[in-house]
Parts: sequence; C-alpha cells; structure tokens
Amino acid sequence: MKLTIIVIGDEILLGQVTDTNSGEISRTLGPEGWETVETMVIGDNADAIRLAIEKAMGQSDLVITTGGLGPTKDDITKTVMTAYFGGELREDPEVVDNIHRVFEKRNLKMNALTRAQAMVPTSCKVIQNVLGTAPIMWFERDGKVLVAMPGVPFETVGMLHSAVLPEILRHFRSDIKVLHHTMMVSGITESALAEHLCAWEENLPPHLHLAYLPTPGLIRLRLDGHYHCADTNAEAQFADAVSTLANILGTYLIYDGDATAAMIVLHYLRKKGWTLATAESCTGGNIARSITKIPGCSDTYVGSVVSYSNDVKQRLLGVNPDTLADEGAVSENVVRRMANGVCMATGADCAVATSGIAGPGGGSDEKPVGTVWIAATAQGQTVARCMHLPGDRQRVINRATTEALLLLLSILQ
Amino acid sequence: MKLTIIVIGDEILLGQVTDTNSGEISRTLGPEGWETVETMVIGDNADAIRLAIEKAMGQSDLVITTGGLGPTKDDITKTVMTAYFGGELREDPEVVDNIHRVFEKRNLKMNALTRAQAMVPTSCKVIQNVLGTAPIMWFERDGKVLVAMPGVPFETVGMLHSAVLPEILRHFRSDIKVLHHTMMVSGITESALAEHLCAWEENLPPHLHLAYLPTPGLIRLRLDGHYHCADTNAEAQFADAVSTLANILGTYLIYDGDATAAMIVLHYLRKKGWTLATAESCTGGNIARSITKIPGCSDTYVGSVVSYSNDVKQRLLGVNPDTLADEGAVSENVVRRMANGVCMATGADCAVATSGIAGPGGGSDEKPVGTVWIAATAQGQTVARCMHLPGDRQRVINRATTEALLLLLSILQ
Repeated sequence: MKLTIIVIGDEILLGQVTDTNSGEISRTLGPEGWETVETMVIGDNADAIRLAIEKAMGQSDLVITTGGLGPTKDDITKTVMTAYFGGELREDPEVVDNIHRVFEKRNLKMNALTRAQAMVPTSCKVIQNVLGTAPIMWFERDGKVLVAMPGVPFETVGMLHSAVLPEILRHFRSDIKVLHHTMMVSGITESALAEHLCAWEENLPPHLHLAYLPTPGLIRLRLDGHYHCADTNAEAQFADAVSTLANILGTYLIYDGDATAAMIVLHYLRKKGWTLATAESCTGGNIARSITKIPGCSDTYVGSVVSYSNDVKQRLLGVNPDTLADEGAVSENVVRRMANGVCMATGADCAVATSGIAGPGGGSDEKPVGTVWIAATAQGQTVARCMHLPGDRQRVINRATTEALLLLLSILQ
Repeated sequence: MKLTIIVIGDEILLGQVTDTNSGEISRTLGPEGWETVETMVIGDNADAIRLAIEKAMGQSDLVITTGGLGPTKDDITKTVMTAYFGGELREDPEVVDNIHRVFEKRNLKMNALTRAQAMVPTSCKVIQNVLGTAPIMWFERDGKVLVAMPGVPFETVGMLHSAVLPEILRHFRSDIKVLHHTMMVSGITESALAEHLCAWEENLPPHLHLAYLPTPGLIRLRLDGHYHCADTNAEAQFADAVSTLANILGTYLIYDGDATAAMIVLHYLRKKGWTLATAESCTGGNIARSITKIPGCSDTYVGSVVSYSNDVKQRLLGVNPDTLADEGAVSENVVRRMANGVCMATGADCAVATSGIAGPGGGSDEKPVGTVWIAATAQGQTVARCMHLPGDRQRVINRATTEALLLLLSILQ
C-alpha cells in the first residue's frame, strides 16, 4: 500500500521551521505495511496544493497532509480540498464545541478567526482534534483516502497515534497482519553486523524482513513479519524468529525494544536501584538533556555538574589544579576525577564524565579537534577511554554523549 | 527566480533521518532573491529520481539535489543524471585526488566502492567537495541549472556556503542586488508587533519587504531590499530604512543581527566582562546546551549545576530544606536561591535558574504541568517570574530555556 505525505506551509518551505511530522508519519505507518513513495513540501498556495493533491491521489492509496490549517491559512487549504472532493464549507457544531473546550483549557476566548476553523467541507468526515483547534478531515474518493492533519507537531503526533492510525488500520483492514520487534545493538559497526547476520538473513523466509536503522554509536534492528490474519500461529512463529535473532546477536544486543542510549542506561540502573549523575565539559549539558528528556527520569537521575571552566572542575568536582596544569583538561586523569567527583558531590551511585575538544577552535597537534576523553564509574569501578570523533561541533557533542552513556552500560551489565 | 530542492534518500523518506539540508538551502538562497517553490523528498529509486528531475527542471530556474551520492547508492543517481543531461560516466582524476586527500585526513584507505565515487558524467562541471568524497556536480540544460550535492549535512552546508552559493550568484548574475538585515525583537507578541509596525509597513516602497520569523519567545525580523546593481545609493538608502525600523522598534529591539537568545546574552555579558553560570531543574541541561553549542562560549560561560533532585539543590546550591518542604521545589524562593547559589558555587557574576513541571506527570491543581519559575541574577540584583507554558514536555523545556535567558537580558540592558 502506497502513501504520499504533503507538508503544507511557507514557514517550512522557506526553512524557518524544520518538518519533523513527515518522518513521524513514515516511521509509524512503515511497520504497518505502508510504503512512503514521496513527501512533498509546498507553500500556502492554492495552485501548489491542488497540483500536489492531484499527483498524490494518483500515485498512492493514502495521502496525509499536514499544516495549512492555522486560523489565518484555513481558507486556502479547505477551499482547494472542497473543490477536489466536492461538497461545500459549513460550520460543524461539534468542531465549535471542541474549539471551546480547547480554548477553555488554555484560558483563551474564541474570536472570529478561530471560529472560522469550525468550517469544514461537507464531503469529509471529521476526526476531532482534542489537542488543538484545527479539525482533522478524512476524505475519500475512488477508493483512496486523504487525511488532512494540523501542522503543530504536538498535535500531529498526538492525534496520529491516538486517532488517525487506528482509523487507517480499520479502514484499510487487510488479510495481512504485520508484527514487528525492535532491538538495540552496540559494539559493532553496521557493516560488520551485516556480515555477522548474513547467513541468517539469507535464509529468512520472504514474509520476514530485517531493517537496519543506524544512529551514531547505536544500531536499531527492526524485524518485521507479514502474516495472514487467519494464521493463528503467527505470534508464536514470529517470537521464535525474534529469539533466534537475539541468540545470534549475543552480547551485541544491549536492549530488547526501541530506546535511546539514555533510556537503556536508566533501565539497567533501575534494575539495580542505583542513582546517576553526570559531569560534563565538552558535551556542555547535552548528556543531562538527553536524560531529562525522558519523563520520570527523576527516580534515577539526580543531576549534573557542567564544569565548562577549569575553575568549576576544581571547585565542584575536586579536580586537582596540578593535574589540570600538567596533563590538560582533556586527559584521562581529569575525566576520571570528574566522574568520581560528581558522585561525591551529589551522592550518586554512578556517573559519566566527558572532557574534549568539540571545535572548531581549541585543537592542537597533540590533541586535535574531536579528541574526547570519556569516563564512567559505578560503585567503585571507573573506566575511561579516549576517542577521536569526526565532524563538526554538534556531531562531536552528540557522539560523545552516546559513547559516554554506552561506556557506563559496559560496566553495568 | 525559482528554486526546487530534491532530497534523495530512503533513510529520509522512511523517517529514520530528519532532513535539515533543504531548510538551510532555502534560508541561504531566499534572501538572495530565490523563491523555493517545492521541496521533494524521494527514495533511492531511479524512476522517482528521473520524474523528480523532469518536474523540477520544468518548474524552476535552479534545482538543487541533496543525497543519493553515497558509495553504495552512487550508481542510481548518477546514471539517471547522465541519461537526462547526456554524456557518459568517466573517472575524474581530480576527484580521485580529492578522495585521497579526504581519506588521508581520516586515516582511511581507499577501496573500490569509494573509488567509484570518482566516476562523474562528462556533461557536468565538478565542484570539488573538500569536506567529503562525493563530488558536487553542476549541470546545465536549456538555460537552467541543476546542482547535485552530497547528503551529509556537515558537507552540504559547508560546501553550500563556501563554493555552491558563490557559483550560483556568479552564474545567475542579475541586474538586481538584494540587501538584507535581521533584527531580534522581544517583549511583544507577533500580532501586536504587526500592529505596531502597520503604518510603517503600509508605506514601504515595493522594493522593500519585511519578513516575520517567529521562534518561541523571540521574533526575528528580516528586512530585504531589492535594488538595481547600478544604483550607487542603494546601501545608504537601505541603511536609512533599517535605522527607521530600529527607531520604531525602540526597546523591543534587543539585538541588531541574527542570533539565538543564548548568543544575545553572551554578547551583552562580553561587553560588561561578566561571567555566567546556570542552575537548572526542569530544563535539565538544555540551557547549558544552548549556550555551549556556541563556539568560543568558554570566555564567558563557566558551567551549570543541573540540580534535578532536591538533594542536589541543597548540596550544591545551598537551597534550604525548610523552603523546599514548605514551598515546594517549584517556587519563587527556591529558584531565586538556585540562581544565587550557583553564582556562589562557581564564582560567576550572573546566573539564570529554572524550576518547573515539564510533565507529563508531576502536576497538581495548584501547580499544573507547565508551571515554571525562572530567576536571573546579575551582580546582586535578582528577579524571578512564574510562567504557565502550554504544550508537551519538550516545548515547555525549550520555552523555559529562552525565557530564562531573556529574563537575564532584561536586567543586563
């Protein structure tokens, strides 16, 4: 089944806002058997929207549009859709009620512009957008479906999972059910992993498919299985395949499920009941951020000392000024002391620490840009490692963040 | 002049990687007078690439493609381009030299796959990609241009600014020169600002255009001026318009230029020679990260205490346990003490602090999710403010980050 996504919005076309909705839609529908054939990004322009809809409806079974539905842009998108799918624009009393509810929650009063959002084509079925004021519109024509969704990511993603995906699965009910399972793999490059799994992959039956989804330092492996709905043995067969794959992966498999490095570290720490702190120089708060993005992390994560200056490394982490003078801030002894120092300062059981040169300045012949020392400590055992990371400042920071968390994992398991 | 961007790559179409290149290209070429009419995202598929190129060349003067040029995908994209623009694939000795240079820098050996990257259509002019191994290809047909660029953002962005943009400006040399100037505005909503500037905007001559680029808490205003190249008075006239706009903006204008909240804070602190620290609870390291993203920030920024647990608030920032018990962690007195405490702990001259409920859990009737206290202190003066922020966890964190930095700015100016 083929899917085309149309992203509507001048702000995205002009590069003022980065579109993340289309990725979320593809990632969500892909494992359900939907192949995204194209994503089009167009402006708030009637001709462009009309041409995009015509092309998308021609090449796909399902079209999802995002954006073009704000209170100031409503007219263009809805008028084009009404022309294409028929009917006329009429105020929908249930949408008016929904807008009232959303506005009450936000302590706002409805105005004329917002009220106009309740106008919907009579040719569509409305899916109430409980997270915002722009109604979600479900159109059908020639056996194909177009779903018009709002563009605010919080609303798009929330409504996709809670209402739109279930409706799509109901509508396009097929004889095939798709099962999937994700595992996180570390300690091996993507090409070495492909070699390691080669024999098993070559003998996979055609209804099983393995997808490699590499991220820096961590590989996500997703196994998809396509079965007939009547096949009562499907779940057991698929579980067998998952377990065989897990056996072949052995110690490379670090987490059974879909997770970031920070989520995996929290998982293992919770099993042991240990708390975590971080001490960051070159990553500058990025490790703390990657952990505190996770709701509920406060049961395990106590905090961080971002010791950007040498003075703060001494004051708060107890790094010896002589070590800093003799070996430099980017050195094994400093990063080890940072990890131990933040445990002492915060009372945490475990810690990771980073000190490096993220660039673009600050490099030397001996320690070029990309040189990063990382350390991890857990209940008395401390390990450290030096890395030479390629790329620009942000890539070095992101990679060092993942590697520091994986280093801690290596002494937790 | 019209521009179409084609983003090639299964990983982007499937949502495994978020495309940021197209936004950078639009943001860079827009102010030079290029209107992006469409961005297409397609997979590594010969038919899709061919159809996209045909459509794009039909509707635009310039087409930029990104991606589809990795060592394993080279064939598809280059074969399609050779078929469309003519010529044949041949090894380019200068590209071979460039790949050798790049590999030497990375301490890697060239293999057969990489060597194949040196094959380029005889119908194109090569722009050496000094940041990677995939050559940039410049094609011309019927007075239109297609530039094929690599997909790795570090290479795309770097080469766009250093080599591709200058070549585009040279090639499409026009009688028009475009001048632009960006200013950062704060303390007013976008709609109130539009009202404030209404009279001035209505009387703007047609060669001047004002663009509103809102971000959470901060509005970027960009004035574009289109002049004839022969107009020797253009710069002076444009400077006049900029200065009139600055006068009307008055105190809403917080920075003359394009900058993030963190960059503006660093700018004002450097003028005073003051250092900065941060104390973060609900923002969890995000403020530190927004500052340490900026190369060279270490002259001003000393570090952060991410005091996620109450225990760390007491240990490292000296927050009184009685205050925590009586008023809760999300309270004025706690956040004020955090700001002052981190100055004492680190020796910094100024600080910002945050404590709030980012959600989705942890809210109460009295302090619902989105309640955030922020404080700022500069040489003895401390201010604090309570906010009720809408949206999900990440939106609350991002908005609190900007508002805390702007609060510090309000006592620095």
